[in-house]
Amino acid sequence: MQGYLTAGAFLTGAATSMLCGFLGMMIATYSNARTTLACANHGYTLGFNTAFRGGSVMGYALCSLGVLVLWALLTVFRKVYPDPDDWEILFDCAAGYGLGGSTVAMFGRVGGGIYTKAADVGADLVGKVVAGLDEDDPNNPATIADNVGDNVGDIAGMGADLFGSFAESTCAALVIAAAAVEGSHSTLFEAGWNAMLFPVSISAAGIVICILCGFYATNISPVREEKDIEWVLKLQLVLTAFIMLPVIYLLALHLLPSEFRLEGVRLDEDGTPAKIHGTPFKAWMVDEIVCEREEETGGMIIGLVTEYFTSHSFIPTRELASACKFGTAVNIIQGLALGYKSCIIPVFVLSSAIFVSFQLCDLYGIALAALGMLATLACGLTIDGFGPISDNAGGIAEMALFNPEVRRRTDALDAAGNTTAAIGKGFAIGSAALVSLALYGAFVVRLRVKTGVNILEPTTFAFLIIGCMIPYWFAALTMKSVGKAAGEMVAEVKRQFSLKDSKGKTLLDGSTELKPDSLTCIQISTAASLKEMVAPACLVILSPLLAGTFFGVQAVFGLLTGSLGSSVQLAISMSNSGGAWDNCKKFIKNGFSDDPELRYTKNPKTQEEKDAAPKAKEAHDAAVQGDTVGDPFKDTSGPALNIVMKLQAIVSLVFAAYFAAINHGHGFMGNIIL
Amino acid sequence: MQGYLTAGAFLTGAATSMLCGFLGMMIATYSNARTTLACANHGYTLGFNTAFRGGSVMGYALCSLGVLVLWALLTVFRKVYPDPDDWEILFDCAAGYGLGGSTVAMFGRVGGGIYTKAADVGADLVGKVVAGLDEDDPNNPATIADNVGDNVGDIAGMGADLFGSFAESTCAALVIAAAAVEGSHSTLFEAGWNAMLFPVSISAAGIVICILCGFYATNISPVREEKDIEWVLKLQLVLTAFIMLPVIYLLALHLLPSEFRLEGVRLDEDGTPAKIHGTPFKAWMVDEIVCEREEETGGMIIGLVTEYFTSHSFIPTRELASACKFGTAVNIIQGLALGYKSCIIPVFVLSSAIFVSFQLCDLYGIALAALGMLATLACGLTIDGFGPISDNAGGIAEMALFNPEVRRRTDALDAAGNTTAAIGKGFAIGSAALVSLALYGAFVVRLRVKTGVNILEPTTFAFLIIGCMIPYWFAALTMKSVGKAAGEMVAEVKRQFSLKDSKGKTLLDGSTELKPDSLTCIQISTAASLKEMVAPACLVILSPLLAGTFFGVQAVFGLLTGSLGSSVQLAISMSNSGGAWDNCKKFIKNGFSDDPELRYTKNPKTQEEKDAAPKAKEAHDAAVQGDTVGDPFKDTSGPALNIVMKLQAIVSLVFAAYFAAINHGHGFMGNIIL
Repeated sequence: MQGYLTAGAFLTGAATSMLCGFLGMMIATYSNARTTLACANHGYTLGFNTAFRGGSVMGYALCSLGVLVLWALLTVFRKVYPDPDDWEILFDCAAGYGLGGSTVAMFGRVGGGIYTKAADVGADLVGKVVAGLDEDDPNNPATIADNVGDNVGDIAGMGADLFGSFAESTCAALVIAAAAVEGSHSTLFEAGWNAMLFPVSISAAGIVICILCGFYATNISPVREEKDIEWVLKLQLVLTAFIMLPVIYLLALHLLPSEFRLEGVRLDEDGTPAKIHGTPFKAWMVDEIVCEREEETGGMIIGLVTEYFTSHSFIPTRELASACKFGTAVNIIQGLALGYKSCIIPVFVLSSAIFVSFQLCDLYGIALAALGMLATLACGLTIDGFGPISDNAGGIAEMALFNPEVRRRTDALDAAGNTTAAIGKGFAIGSAALVSLALYGAFVVRLRVKTGVNILEPTTFAFLIIGCMIPYWFAALTMKSVGKAAGEMVAEVKRQFSLKDSKGKTLLDGSTELKPDSLTCIQISTAASLKEMVAPACLVILSPLLAGTFFGVQAVFGLLTGSLGSSVQLAISMSNSGGAWDNCKKFIKNGFSDDPELRYTKNPKTQEEKDAAPKAKEAHDAAVQGDTVGDPFKDTSGPALNIVMKLQAIVSLVFAAYFAAINHGHGFMGNIIL
Repeated sequence: MQGYLTAGAFLTGAATSMLCGFLGMMIATYSNARTTLACANHGYTLGFNTAFRGGSVMGYALCSLGVLVLWALLTVFRKVYPDPDDWEILFDCAAGYGLGGSTVAMFGRVGGGIYTKAADVGADLVGKVVAGLDEDDPNNPATIADNVGDNVGDIAGMGADLFGSFAESTCAALVIAAAAVEGSHSTLFEAGWNAMLFPVSISAAGIVICILCGFYATNISPVREEKDIEWVLKLQLVLTAFIMLPVIYLLALHLLPSEFRLEGVRLDEDGTPAKIHGTPFKAWMVDEIVCEREEETGGMIIGLVTEYFTSHSFIPTRELASACKFGTAVNIIQGLALGYKSCIIPVFVLSSAIFVSFQLCDLYGIALAALGMLATLACGLTIDGFGPISDNAGGIAEMALFNPEVRRRTDALDAAGNTTAAIGKGFAIGSAALVSLALYGAFVVRLRVKTGVNILEPTTFAFLIIGCMIPYWFAALTMKSVGKAAGEMVAEVKRQFSLKDSKGKTLLDGSTELKPDSLTCIQISTAASLKEMVAPACLVILSPLLAGTFFGVQAVFGLLTGSLGSSVQLAISMSNSGGAWDNCKKFIKNGFSDDPELRYTKNPKTQEEKDAAPKAKEAHDAAVQGDTVGDPFKDTSGPALNIVMKLQAIVSLVFAAYFAAINHGHGFMGNIIL
């Protein structure tokens, strides 16, 4: 029975996530042309509102479906297990919901990432191989695949990722609250069903608040001119989080018992598990103060650091641009160093969030902190969706030969979206780290381990090193996949370029008979992404299963610890290196620099520009190479690492009972080795 | 008193390490010209023997001085603390010896790495900026600095690194054996001074065996023709390890009590520290079977994997070369992916070595495994020194206009040296990981922590994430330093090239009056390396001190765990990516490929070569860019990460008593937070 229910929950989670991604992509492609028109006919206000509402479809659909389906699922399960003594099993089964969401997210992020970057890198390479072809040349058959890829990666991938985080953190909180250690239930559990559902109620409240705040942006204080856009978007984030504060306090007071006790994974001085005493106030503290700290301060800080390191308005990317003068190699070295360096502050922020919430409410605190961070998810997703919609709107304006003023407006929307998207990335990484820790903790609590996780055990430490290696393995697989798929794309484009029509003209000669065959390119991207995501997904899903089956739960502990620590760094550094290279290229290409040697122009006018032109061309070429390296970094491997840590942890949690059964948690090799 | 003794031990260790580096570099520069002459006048046998004996000076000096000085130090300390009850303090003080060795190693690796790569990257960039200048053009004033740098990095840096490993693993074994937990000494301790010195005796025996085996290479079965060289070198490694087997068993039987009991860091099922029962057989098992496994199998496997991934005789580097056809960006993406992928097998090997030795003799086993791995250090260092000596001998043959046959001979020596050097790198990384774990364990034992290291404590987990970040921070600092110093070098070379003599000719025009001013370039490299190594060194040394002072030992535990796990991956991947790019460039440059588009020739002859020449040039350029990116990877940041993990662990161990004293191990913030 338990197996069927878990499988059912898994399928439900996967289906919900897919449905949301599908809806999001539909609405996004539906809104982009409308945004262009709105910008053309009605100016900023309607343009902004169209893109913003388009994005919000994804946000609200995902959050409300997520909460609703989970609530329905729990209600059904409660009919199956009416006896509170069985609720522990009930919530175990519900964890399948998180696993389903996360598995789809893995496919969304990895598949989407390979899809979009195979097209993008392929198109860039064609531009190199077939000299003189611009980046978005409509004659290039890979261009459409590239544009489609933006939607797959940014809308479906990001949405599935955050949906996974939301589903998993809720499940982690439920499992922790329901775990009965040493035969007695936690007092939180005994307070009844409503107290248990406190985590779900946070998410539900978040949706209502986001809707209300959304009206503020579109109706009460709408965008009137260009400079309003970024401010209105940022205000959304601050406003929703601010209103959440008293609401969650009321929820905590209403739903939670006045004092509750939980089993923790920390140890007292005498080596026994510490009892954690919680109060609604503490839970609120964690959820709001820490979530505040994490989200509005922390998430903001991570976002601002991301912006600082990757935006060409600040020193790091400008230094990177100067490095381009010395050629590609120096650009790459400095870009990698920049990514490594950009880990420092986010890691400190993340560590302090972990420390404070862990200290206050143990693992339940971590789960609540993750939930608090995701409470205003609807608002965050709206902004995430807003970016690609405006981006595509710009493309449509360009291709449909609108007035340049329209393009300027959509670009303004896009620029504001890009800045706030950096904050979105901060959320995604931060919440992923918190969620995986919460799941890891839920796994430990679920296994009734009384001695904590002693890292200095032979099995645990050996697997810690292996766990640290998994993200590297994963990144190697995904990066190679992009390279391979891009190669196929180049071959196809070359083939199309070599075709000659009846007059002996090729596509590039301006043949009127031949049309670029975008469909074949889209098929190549699709096939590659489907085929290439199998190996990385298997690596992530099978590694905890194999470790646990053969070497026992101690091995899984080590694996999860190492993988979590290593993924965070690699995810942050890859995303930021990639972002910085991208903006560095834009900086040189668009001629923002004061230094003429870094101002690339196709038609130099002044004498100064003419003198500097050869050097500027060299710097530009170096920047383009850096950008191509950065593409799989920032859009394939980097963001997919968020899923690596979450997925490994939830797989372990779902299979906790199975691990415990094999040779009492020592695995098949346990009896031979120990 | 304890403070003074520790400081004394620190200074002794630092002085010994510096003396060895100095001697090694002296002899290396002394032997290289002699090797050239021997190759010219007497053929392979004497040429090989000269280089081999030159290298062995470094090896034997370092090992015998290391053992001798440590033994002298312990004897002196024993006069100060004659009472066995004080021996725990005695060995604590002796740990300063390891700290001294490792601190110098840090400066050797980081300083040496920045020195050599500032010159190398600088020289490459000048070749790019001033078109048409060959890599080792004698007119380039940076060339000499580049050659000097090879000695600093490969001889002094590598030597100091392995000396540090040796000194630290001995200290770790001594501290663990001497630690008195719960008031009672370990039975190993009670067996007396000789049993305690078992680790030192392993190293001493290793030196004698290496000397004997050395005669085999130079006298009994000397090198007669080219194909002998690699075989003779590899045989040295196998032979020494094989003879060590019975010798160490006899030592264990003779010195160790027939059964001994140690305090471990593992926990029994009931949460109390497990008692580890050891026998000489077990110790021998760990030391030899595991060391065998690790050294001759493991070290070999790591080395062979390194060779497989970086040598242009195998698929990965050949694939990388094909990627160069698509330009620099694809080369960089694939090279990074290759490095990430090359972590997989070494990490599994390392994990199993850790697992087996940990399982057999707990932390003492880890320390013994590290020592076993380093027992034949003299032989390994000889081979490490052999490489740069032959390399420089080739340079001298070229510059002094010897017969090309001489150059061919030195190249054959160099090629064999490079292959075996890959095995040396495997040793360095493997031993560093084992040593840091042993030191970390000694730290935990020394603090008398009874509950193991529970990773799921707020402080510990928060600092685990920070620990994982430290290697990235460190790599960012060192990579930026190389970039900065290389920039200064380019400016200086440009300045020299712009000088005109009385006839208006510059250096490049073939001026007879001007001479390249190599000294200034050497000074730039020296000044940059001295200045730029301060920040990375402070980061590594201060991070455990600050964590322990403010947040207590739990924070240090987390920091060490994270840093160890993360450093291993980054060190392996950076070294291998760099090595692969280097060999990929050689592959294309020397025209080893079957594909004419990957065969770079300055003067194409056949029609096929002429047709392919422009593409071959492009591929070659891409490979050169990759090589330049790889330079700081493989010679600055990568190998220096070995030291990061060791140094952090030994700093913690030496300051263990201090940490324990501050608020009972909770640090200054402890009372406020907890």
